[in-house]
Amino acid sequence: MDTSEAWRRVHNSPSGVLGTIDKEHGVHLVPVVYSVVGDSGVLIAVDSKPKRSRRLRRLANIEADPRVTLLVDRYTDDWSRLWWVRLEGRASVRPSVDAAVERAHRERYPQLDGHALGPWIDIAIERVSGWSAS
Amino acid sequence: MDTSEAWRRVHNSPSGVLGTIDKEHGVHLVPVVYSVVGDSGVLIAVDSKPKRSRRLRRLANIEADPRVTLLVDRYTDDWSRLWWVRLEGRASVRPSVDAAVERAHRERYPQLDGHALGPWIDIAIERVSGWSAS
Repeated sequence: MDTSEAWRRVHNSPSGVLGTIDKEHGVHLVPVVYSVVGDSGVLIAVDSKPKRSRRLRRLANIEADPRVTLLVDRYTDDWSRLWWVRLEGRASVRPSVDAAVERAHRERYPQLDGHALGPWIDIAIERVSGWSAS
Repeated sequence: MDTSEAWRRVHNSPSGVLGTIDKEHGVHLVPVVYSVVGDSGVLIAVDSKPKRSRRLRRLANIEADPRVTLLVDRYTDDWSRLWWVRLEGRASVRPSVDAAVERAHRERYPQLDGHALGPWIDIAIERVSGWSAS
Protein backbone atom coordinates (compact mmCIF):
# COMPACT_ATOMS: atom_id res chain seq x y z
CA MET A 1 0.00 0.00 0.00
CA ASP A 2 1.49 3.33 -0.96
CA THR A 3 1.80 6.21 1.47
CA SER A 4 -0.98 8.35 0.04
CA GLU A 5 -3.42 5.44 0.12
CA ALA A 6 -2.39 4.70 3.72
CA TRP A 7 -3.06 8.29 4.77
CA ARG A 8 -6.39 8.25 2.92
CA ARG A 9 -7.50 5.19 4.90
CA VAL A 10 -6.39 6.73 8.18
CA HIS A 11 -8.33 9.89 7.44
CA ASN A 12 -11.42 7.93 6.42
CA SER A 13 -11.38 5.68 9.49
CA PRO A 14 -12.86 6.84 12.77
CA SER A 15 -10.54 5.27 15.34
CA GLY A 16 -7.26 3.54 16.02
CA VAL A 17 -5.11 2.13 18.77
CA LEU A 18 -2.36 4.26 20.28
CA GLY A 19 0.71 2.55 21.68
CA THR A 20 3.12 4.23 24.08
CA ILE A 21 6.03 2.89 26.05
CA ASP A 22 5.56 2.33 29.76
CA LYS A 23 9.01 1.87 31.20
CA GLU A 24 7.69 -0.23 34.06
CA HIS A 25 4.96 -2.32 32.44
CA GLY A 26 5.92 -2.46 28.78
CA VAL A 27 3.48 -1.43 26.08
CA HIS A 28 0.46 0.69 26.90
CA LEU A 29 -2.44 0.51 24.44
CA VAL A 30 -5.62 2.55 24.34
CA PRO A 31 -8.26 3.14 21.64
CA VAL A 32 -8.27 6.70 20.35
CA VAL A 33 -10.01 9.01 17.92
CA TYR A 34 -7.85 11.42 15.98
CA SER A 35 -7.55 13.99 13.22
CA VAL A 36 -4.98 14.03 10.45
CA VAL A 37 -3.35 17.47 10.27
CA GLY A 38 -1.23 18.56 7.34
CA ASP A 39 1.00 16.12 5.51
CA SER A 40 2.28 14.05 8.39
CA GLY A 41 0.59 15.06 11.61
CA VAL A 42 -1.94 13.32 13.82
CA LEU A 43 -3.72 14.97 16.73
CA ILE A 44 -5.45 13.15 19.56
CA ALA A 45 -7.53 15.06 22.08
CA VAL A 46 -7.85 14.00 25.67
CA ASP A 47 -11.25 14.63 27.22
CA SER A 48 -10.68 17.22 29.93
CA LYS A 49 -11.50 15.51 33.18
CA PRO A 50 -9.42 17.42 35.70
CA LYS A 51 -9.03 14.66 38.26
CA ARG A 52 -7.46 12.27 35.87
CA SER A 53 -5.95 14.07 32.93
CA ARG A 54 -2.51 14.65 34.37
CA ARG A 55 -2.28 11.08 35.52
CA LEU A 56 -3.20 9.37 32.26
CA ARG A 57 -0.60 6.75 31.51
CA ARG A 58 -0.41 7.70 27.83
CA LEU A 59 0.60 11.27 28.73
CA ALA A 60 3.15 10.27 31.35
CA ASN A 61 4.59 7.72 28.95
CA ILE A 62 4.99 10.28 26.16
CA GLU A 63 6.79 12.66 28.49
CA ALA A 64 9.24 9.91 29.34
CA ASP A 65 9.60 8.53 25.80
CA PRO A 66 8.06 10.36 22.81
CA ARG A 67 8.02 7.35 20.48
CA VAL A 68 4.44 6.31 19.72
CA THR A 69 2.64 4.13 17.22
CA LEU A 70 -0.91 4.44 15.91
CA LEU A 71 -2.52 1.42 14.30
CA VAL A 72 -5.64 1.82 12.19
CA ASP A 73 -7.30 -1.29 10.89
CA ARG A 74 -10.59 -2.74 9.84
CA TYR A 75 -11.54 -6.26 10.90
CA THR A 76 -14.02 -8.25 8.90
CA ASP A 77 -14.78 -11.95 8.76
CA ASP A 78 -14.00 -11.74 5.04
CA TRP A 79 -10.23 -11.89 5.31
CA SER A 80 -9.79 -10.96 1.66
CA ARG A 81 -10.83 -7.43 2.72
CA LEU A 82 -8.53 -6.99 5.72
CA TRP A 83 -6.15 -4.06 5.85
CA TRP A 84 -4.15 -2.05 8.35
CA VAL A 85 -2.02 1.07 8.47
CA ARG A 86 0.72 1.65 11.01
CA LEU A 87 1.96 5.17 11.75
CA GLU A 88 5.10 5.60 13.84
CA GLY A 89 6.28 8.93 15.12
CA ARG A 90 7.21 11.23 17.95
CA ALA A 91 4.59 12.76 20.17
CA SER A 92 4.42 15.82 22.32
CA VAL A 93 1.70 16.94 24.68
CA ARG A 94 0.19 20.39 24.16
CA PRO A 95 -2.41 22.12 26.32
CA SER A 96 -4.34 23.38 23.29
CA VAL A 97 -4.36 23.63 19.50
CA ASP A 98 -5.37 26.28 16.99
CA ALA A 99 -9.07 27.05 17.10
CA ALA A 100 -9.50 25.98 13.47
CA VAL A 101 -7.91 22.63 14.19
CA GLU A 102 -10.09 22.04 17.23
CA ARG A 103 -13.17 23.03 15.23
CA ALA A 104 -12.30 20.56 12.47
CA HIS A 105 -11.78 17.84 15.08
CA ARG A 106 -15.17 18.56 16.61
CA GLU A 107 -16.78 18.47 13.16
CA ARG A 108 -15.20 15.09 12.59
CA TYR A 109 -16.57 13.84 15.92
CA PRO A 110 -19.93 15.45 16.73
CA GLN A 111 -20.04 13.08 19.71
CA LEU A 112 -17.61 15.52 21.42
CA ASP A 113 -20.32 18.17 21.69
CA GLY A 114 -20.29 19.51 25.23
CA HIS A 115 -16.90 17.99 26.10
CA ALA A 116 -13.95 20.20 26.99
CA LEU A 117 -10.86 18.99 25.13
CA GLY A 118 -7.22 18.99 26.10
CA PRO A 119 -4.45 18.35 26.52
CA TRP A 120 -3.68 17.22 22.98
CA ILE A 121 -1.24 14.60 21.79
CA ASP A 122 0.52 15.97 18.73
CA ILE A 123 2.30 13.29 16.70
CA ALA A 124 4.84 13.96 13.97
CA ILE A 125 4.63 10.79 11.88
CA GLU A 126 8.01 9.56 10.65
CA ARG A 127 7.18 6.13 9.24
CA VAL A 128 4.09 4.92 7.44
CA SER A 129 3.45 1.30 6.60
CA GLY A 130 0.37 -0.49 5.47
CA TRP A 131 -0.96 -3.78 4.24
CA SER A 132 -4.05 -4.81 2.40
CA ALA A 133 -5.18 -8.35 1.64
CA SER A 134 -6.52 -7.39 -1.75
CA MET B 1 -15.74 -3.94 34.14
CA ASP B 2 -14.97 -7.04 36.18
CA THR B 3 -12.41 -9.58 35.10
CA SER B 4 -14.84 -12.30 34.06
CA GLU B 5 -16.78 -9.86 31.89
CA ALA B 6 -13.52 -8.65 30.35
CA TRP B 7 -12.51 -12.21 29.46
CA ARG B 8 -15.99 -12.92 28.08
CA ARG B 9 -15.68 -9.95 25.72
CA VAL B 10 -12.21 -10.98 24.60
CA HIS B 11 -13.43 -14.49 23.84
CA ASN B 12 -16.46 -13.20 21.95
CA SER B 13 -14.48 -10.73 19.85
CA PRO B 14 -12.69 -11.85 16.72
CA SER B 15 -9.57 -9.70 16.75
CA GLY B 16 -7.32 -7.34 18.67
CA VAL B 17 -4.13 -5.34 18.45
CA LEU B 18 -0.89 -6.82 19.76
CA GLY B 19 1.76 -4.47 21.10
CA THR B 20 5.37 -5.50 21.54
CA ILE B 21 8.47 -3.50 22.41
CA ASP B 22 10.91 -2.73 19.64
CA LYS B 23 14.08 -1.55 21.32
CA GLU B 24 15.06 0.52 18.31
CA HIS B 25 11.77 1.95 17.09
CA GLY B 26 9.51 1.97 20.14
CA VAL B 27 6.13 0.29 20.08
CA HIS B 28 5.28 -2.26 17.41
CA LEU B 29 1.57 -2.80 16.74
CA VAL B 30 -0.12 -5.37 14.56
CA PRO B 31 -3.70 -6.66 14.29
CA VAL B 32 -4.06 -10.27 15.41
CA VAL B 33 -6.60 -13.03 15.82
CA TYR B 34 -6.31 -15.19 18.91
CA SER B 35 -7.78 -17.88 21.11
CA VAL B 36 -8.32 -17.70 24.85
CA VAL B 37 -6.84 -20.79 26.50
CA GLY B 38 -7.59 -21.75 30.09
CA ASP B 39 -8.05 -19.09 32.76
CA SER B 40 -5.41 -16.59 31.72
CA GLY B 41 -3.81 -17.63 28.46
CA VAL B 42 -3.98 -16.18 24.98
CA LEU B 43 -2.56 -17.87 21.89
CA ILE B 44 -1.78 -16.15 18.61
CA ALA B 45 -0.79 -18.18 15.56
CA VAL B 46 1.56 -16.92 12.93
CA ASP B 47 0.74 -18.03 9.41
CA SER B 48 3.62 -20.22 8.34
CA LYS B 49 5.33 -18.43 5.49
CA PRO B 50 8.87 -19.73 5.65
CA LYS B 51 10.56 -16.78 4.07
CA ARG B 52 9.31 -14.30 6.59
CA SER B 53 8.31 -16.06 9.79
CA ARG B 54 11.65 -15.88 11.54
CA ARG B 55 12.01 -12.23 10.70
CA LEU B 56 8.65 -10.98 11.92
CA ARG B 57 9.21 -8.03 14.18
CA ARG B 58 6.69 -9.21 16.74
CA LEU B 59 8.64 -12.45 17.23
CA ALA B 60 12.05 -10.81 17.44
CA ASN B 61 10.65 -8.25 19.86
CA ILE B 62 9.21 -10.92 22.17
CA GLU B 63 12.52 -12.75 22.25
CA ALA B 64 14.22 -9.53 23.37
CA ASP B 65 11.47 -8.42 25.78
CA PRO B 66 8.57 -10.73 26.64
CA ARG B 67 6.21 -7.99 27.86
CA VAL B 68 3.23 -7.67 25.51
CA THR B 69 -0.19 -6.05 25.55
CA LEU B 70 -3.32 -7.11 23.67
CA LEU B 71 -6.09 -4.56 23.22
CA VAL B 72 -9.57 -5.69 22.20
CA ASP B 73 -12.15 -3.02 21.51
CA ARG B 74 -15.25 -2.30 19.53
CA TYR B 75 -15.64 1.05 17.84
CA THR B 76 -19.06 2.41 17.03
CA ASP B 77 -20.29 5.89 16.22
CA ASP B 78 -22.63 5.51 19.21
CA TRP B 79 -20.11 6.33 21.92
CA SER B 80 -22.46 5.19 24.67
CA ARG B 81 -21.67 1.64 23.49
CA LEU B 82 -17.88 1.88 23.36
CA TRP B 83 -15.79 -0.56 25.36
CA TRP B 84 -12.29 -1.95 25.48
CA VAL B 85 -10.31 -4.62 27.29
CA ARG B 86 -6.57 -4.48 27.83
CA LEU B 87 -4.61 -7.66 28.59
CA GLU B 88 -0.99 -7.33 29.70
CA GLY B 89 1.30 -10.30 30.09
CA ARG B 90 4.44 -12.14 29.18
CA ALA B 91 4.81 -13.92 25.90
CA SER B 92 6.89 -16.77 24.64
CA VAL B 93 7.22 -18.16 21.15
CA ARG B 94 6.50 -21.87 20.62
CA PRO B 95 6.87 -23.85 17.41
CA SER B 96 3.57 -25.66 17.96
CA VAL B 97 0.71 -26.23 20.39
CA ASP B 98 -1.37 -29.23 21.43
CA ALA B 99 -3.42 -30.64 18.57
CA ALA B 100 -6.67 -29.97 20.47
CA VAL B 101 -5.73 -26.33 20.96
CA GLU B 102 -4.85 -25.88 17.29
CA ARG B 103 -8.11 -27.59 16.30
CA ALA B 104 -10.13 -25.23 18.51
CA HIS B 105 -8.29 -22.25 17.03
CA ARG B 106 -9.08 -23.45 13.50
CA GLU B 107 -12.73 -23.95 14.45
CA ARG B 108 -12.80 -20.39 15.75
CA TYR B 109 -11.32 -19.12 12.47
CA PRO B 110 -12.48 -21.22 9.50
CA GLN B 111 -10.68 -18.65 7.33
CA LEU B 112 -7.45 -20.47 8.30
CA ASP B 113 -8.45 -23.54 6.29
CA GLY B 114 -5.48 -24.54 4.18
CA HIS B 115 -2.99 -22.39 6.08
CA ALA B 116 -0.11 -23.98 7.97
CA LEU B 117 0.17 -22.40 11.41
CA GLY B 118 3.17 -21.66 13.59
CA PRO B 119 5.09 -20.50 15.40
CA TRP B 120 2.65 -19.55 18.14
CA ILE B 121 2.79 -16.63 20.54
CA ASP B 122 1.76 -17.93 23.96
CA ILE B 123 0.84 -15.15 26.38
CA ALA B 124 0.43 -15.60 30.13
CA ILE B 125 -1.85 -12.69 31.03
CA GLU B 126 -0.93 -11.00 34.30
CA ARG B 127 -3.13 -7.90 34.29
CA VAL B 128 -6.65 -7.40 32.95
CA SER B 129 -8.33 -4.03 32.72
CA GLY B 130 -11.42 -2.93 30.92
CA TRP B 131 -13.76 -0.05 30.41
CA SER B 132 -17.28 0.26 29.11
CA ALA B 133 -19.19 3.49 28.45
CA SER B 134 -22.44 1.99 29.63
